[in-house]
Amino acid sequence: MIIVRKAMPGDGDALLKTTRALAAFQGYENAVKASAADLENALFCKDPIIGALIAEEQGAPVGAVVWHRSFSTNAGKEVMYLEDISVLPAFKRKGVGKALMQATARVALERGYDAIFWMVLPWNDVAKKLYADCGAEFETPHDICRIKGDALRRLAQ
Amino acid sequence: MIIVRKAMPGDGDALLKTTRALAAFQGYENAVKASAADLENALFCKDPIIGALIAEEQGAPVGAVVWHRSFSTNAGKEVMYLEDISVLPAFKRKGVGKALMQATARVALERGYDAIFWMVLPWNDVAKKLYADCGAEFETPHDICRIKGDALRRLAQ
Repeated sequence: MIIVRKAMPGDGDALLKTTRALAAFQGYENAVKASAADLENALFCKDPIIGALIAEEQGAPVGAVVWHRSFSTNAGKEVMYLEDISVLPAFKRKGVGKALMQATARVALERGYDAIFWMVLPWNDVAKKLYADCGAEFETPHDICRIKGDALRRLAQ
Repeated sequence: MIIVRKAMPGDGDALLKTTRALAAFQGYENAVKASAADLENALFCKDPIIGALIAEEQGAPVGAVVWHRSFSTNAGKEVMYLEDISVLPAFKRKGVGKALMQATARVALERGYDAIFWMVLPWNDVAKKLYADCGAEFETPHDICRIKGDALRRLAQ
């Protein structure tokens, strides 16, 4: 029996666990620098730009979605972006991902959004099948560009 | 002589023009439903999540960047996402894109971000060369998934 609920203060450790599980699955676990407090501070500050849903089985966290407010210049309004959709390895293929996506759709409608979007690694066929089952359309793959740290400071000079 | 400045009230039409130019270049001009007022409302509301920079030549807009606040669960903090990086067709290859990227990097540092990220279409070699010149790293291409409208409402049921 899977329950999905909105994250509450105290859920930082559970969210860090699901973030780390997703990073490990995608091969960049060492990139996770966040602390549980970082995640709670962002979730429970005044006017947060992020939100999170936690899936539980018998009271234990088994997966999570972390979303953030995004903006589409084409639509001229806010849309919801899914930053993390994570199911702990031992709980995969039990419907947790679907339950999370359904609950996320409810939050999106509650907030007046009419679209949610996210990225998926091209080789992740299990996830892509889930998303297709949820009604997702797949758009042209894009490259992701990032400028950070010293490169960002050099560019700004 | 290219000047890049932050968007101000009254710049909605200029931003809509650059948004439309980018959409036309990428082949989805019909997807632009935003109005100039939508863009200004989002930019100049209380606690906006978006910002914009406008490049001008002799006082006329020739390009723009629209960015929004994003959140990295890996970093545990906000980062800057570039939604649109657009140069009007007649002003391409004159350094406008580079000037916009430099000004964007300054805004990112001003706001305490240490990373900016965005997506680029894999075939857009001119843009990719500019981004590489700016110090960007290119990450694994991702598929983009979107659930909207009726599909979103069905999923929420």
